[in-house]
Amino acid sequence: MSEMNRIWRLRKRPVGDITDDVLSFEEESIPEPSDGEFLFRLNYLSLDPTNLIWMRDIDQYMPPVELNAPMRGVVCGTVLKSHHPDYPEGAIVGGIGVWADYQIGTPQSVNSMGDTGPIPVVDAFSTFAVVGPTAYFGLLHIGEPKEGDTVVVSAAAGAVGSIVGQIAKIKGCRVVGLAGTNEKCGWIKDDLGFDVAINYRTEDVPKALAAACPHGIDVYFDNVGGKILDACLNLMNFKGRIPTCGLISQYTATEPVPGPFNYEMIVMQRLRVQGFIVLDFAERYPEAIAALSQWMAEGKITVRTEIVDHLENALQTLKKLFTGANTGKLIIRVKDV
Amino acid sequence: MSEMNRIWRLRKRPVGDITDDVLSFEEESIPEPSDGEFLFRLNYLSLDPTNLIWMRDIDQYMPPVELNAPMRGVVCGTVLKSHHPDYPEGAIVGGIGVWADYQIGTPQSVNSMGDTGPIPVVDAFSTFAVVGPTAYFGLLHIGEPKEGDTVVVSAAAGAVGSIVGQIAKIKGCRVVGLAGTNEKCGWIKDDLGFDVAINYRTEDVPKALAAACPHGIDVYFDNVGGKILDACLNLMNFKGRIPTCGLISQYTATEPVPGPFNYEMIVMQRLRVQGFIVLDFAERYPEAIAALSQWMAEGKITVRTEIVDHLENALQTLKKLFTGANTGKLIIRVKDV
Repeated sequence: MSEMNRIWRLRKRPVGDITDDVLSFEEESIPEPSDGEFLFRLNYLSLDPTNLIWMRDIDQYMPPVELNAPMRGVVCGTVLKSHHPDYPEGAIVGGIGVWADYQIGTPQSVNSMGDTGPIPVVDAFSTFAVVGPTAYFGLLHIGEPKEGDTVVVSAAAGAVGSIVGQIAKIKGCRVVGLAGTNEKCGWIKDDLGFDVAINYRTEDVPKALAAACPHGIDVYFDNVGGKILDACLNLMNFKGRIPTCGLISQYTATEPVPGPFNYEMIVMQRLRVQGFIVLDFAERYPEAIAALSQWMAEGKITVRTEIVDHLENALQTLKKLFTGANTGKLIIRVKDV
Repeated sequence: MSEMNRIWRLRKRPVGDITDDVLSFEEESIPEPSDGEFLFRLNYLSLDPTNLIWMRDIDQYMPPVELNAPMRGVVCGTVLKSHHPDYPEGAIVGGIGVWADYQIGTPQSVNSMGDTGPIPVVDAFSTFAVVGPTAYFGLLHIGEPKEGDTVVVSAAAGAVGSIVGQIAKIKGCRVVGLAGTNEKCGWIKDDLGFDVAINYRTEDVPKALAAACPHGIDVYFDNVGGKILDACLNLMNFKGRIPTCGLISQYTATEPVPGPFNYEMIVMQRLRVQGFIVLDFAERYPEAIAALSQWMAEGKITVRTEIVDHLENALQTLKKLFTGANTGKLIIRVKDV
């Protein structure tokens, strides 16, 4: 192959908002796979809040990306050249890779995506790679909702939140979602079946939440932290659960961010606040994918993917996640399969 | 009975520190028990951080004490006059009562303390009524320590913390305690067998904790919240547990208190933060009392009770809890039994 590779490298750790100089987009030669490795071409790149966490040199659930190293991402690719018998040329793989057209895979970094059946690869990748299982395990295994419970979801029109709310409805819960535009609120309420949608930018959140949750909150699925967490803590019922999926409201902060002012409610109401990452449930992925596939086939779960073409747009598109400008799962499409 | 009753009533809700005008000590007539009730005389009054919570009009795990009502407390008494067959005259009872020489009991408010065997009633009341079971269930059932785990305890020379640390040692853990004087640090290390004691008033807590926990923290038993919680969060290991027993550092605050600045670690390390109150485990008390009795008989658990005579000293003595001036469990002794 004489073609060049294009690759995003981390050049600066972001302080506050993501700036254009944190990553550089460069041309390099295409790598060669060694024994047990394979070369794959990028089809789709998932953009997720955790990308920003990986850029920062803070304690986190994986090592931060090293300065000047290729940017890490959740990727879907097609194997081009293989030195591993289980990953033949043409196989579609998904997992942890880098923001580059061509990259080396190993069985430790990516898995075969198998036959996605009637589901297009891009939809399978968009929903099953990260966000669907995150919603599934976070809500069901950490949140433990029971029929009739009130479940509140923040970032409810986001990729994870929108699925959380729909699973909670399937489980017979009353579901209240918070989102940042009237369009998003309309979508989760009218199209996804949430009982109440609250526009957290225009409404008085504590008041609106209290009105929406006359019997208190049993499960608050926390994607954002900050003021919405504080408002929910005030309404939590006895032995309520708070699966902590992410704290996106504070990822771009430049000063130390205080925790919730109503932290005391953890004792008063005997709450369980539990952080999780979907990787914790890696070996139970098939359970989540089977359930999600069935619900999607039955029309009980609708997902929305915002597809942006061209790898060169990755950095600008990532910024949308932190301003709430995206709707649904953000995917960079390099080449359809 | 022509004698008068002496009773503490809540006259003002405390703002910040407890002031002398929040309670008044008054003389009243002795109440008469109705059918199904009994009259008992106070022997011992337990002073606990939760007394302050009960005085405040905030969301909490029981209704706040009403203004002008008798102050609520954990009490031990002797039945004087009974209209209930299970509580004969002379029975020793313990449970939730009020700060008064004479008071009415019901089976809903107090239970018979039974035969305490070789253990003096004051010791049984001091250790078994609240603090021992709190330490037992909070550490073992919420904290779930495993042999070899590092367990950190704040307020470690306090009534609950000192028992938590000793149970953790019995379970084969490395135990680090934080206390506020060198005398207290000496006691928990030399007498109780903690591996490390940190004086949080004189030492750099984050640095001392990091040195004391070279393999991180698996269980942080939180009695205090605030800066010590923040320092512990920074050192928590993957899937660490934080049983949240109390947040005494903030009970006298007059402004909203921010939660921990390192709240983000809950996601990063997939921590479980869980609040509890000993009442949640009420029906399992016998398990805790049996274990604690045996450990005390074997010399594996030492408890320290600070006994202050006379009911009129209750308010001044309660203040000690919030300045760290007490050592061990604080008890007001009205009449020995």
